[in-house]
Amino acid sequence: MFEAQVTIGLKKGVSDPEGVNTLKALQLLGFTNVKNAATFRTIDLLIDGSDENKVLREVEQMCQRLLTNPVIHQYEIKILESK
Amino acid sequence: MFEAQVTIGLKKGVSDPEGVNTLKALQLLGFTNVKNAATFRTIDLLIDGSDENKVLREVEQMCQRLLTNPVIHQYEIKILESK
Repeated sequence: MFEAQVTIGLKKGVSDPEGVNTLKALQLLGFTNVKNAATFRTIDLLIDGSDENKVLREVEQMCQRLLTNPVIHQYEIKILESK
Repeated sequence: MFEAQVTIGLKKGVSDPEGVNTLKALQLLGFTNVKNAATFRTIDLLIDGSDENKVLREVEQMCQRLLTNPVIHQYEIKILESK
């Protein structure tokens, strides 16, 4: 059993309205020392399998077929052993 | 300058429809060895300051006042030094 953490962010140059608005709201609340805010999504998957490399390849496929939009997203996969 | 990574997830017992639907969709695509999917949001903040503890306390306040909903969310704060 493996745990795969897929962190999905926006590519450079793609605007992040959620981050922009979070930054604005924090500054309006008085947190004026916040200089930037960026948002990410993480999907934690629990995957049955015994071969870490095979699991990694599968998660790559999941990212390409469902989890991310290659036009705007960049992603990072972290595989952890789980019991 | 510090970078604060705030990871926001749902408390135990709170349903995660995005995770449930991701799991369903992955299984429909043939990834039947995926046993669970859970979703998280991460907000990366760049914060001006020199005292790590003070920054941590400020980020705690940001979480309580804006970033999270204490009824349904749990969160974790990681402070990293940034140049």
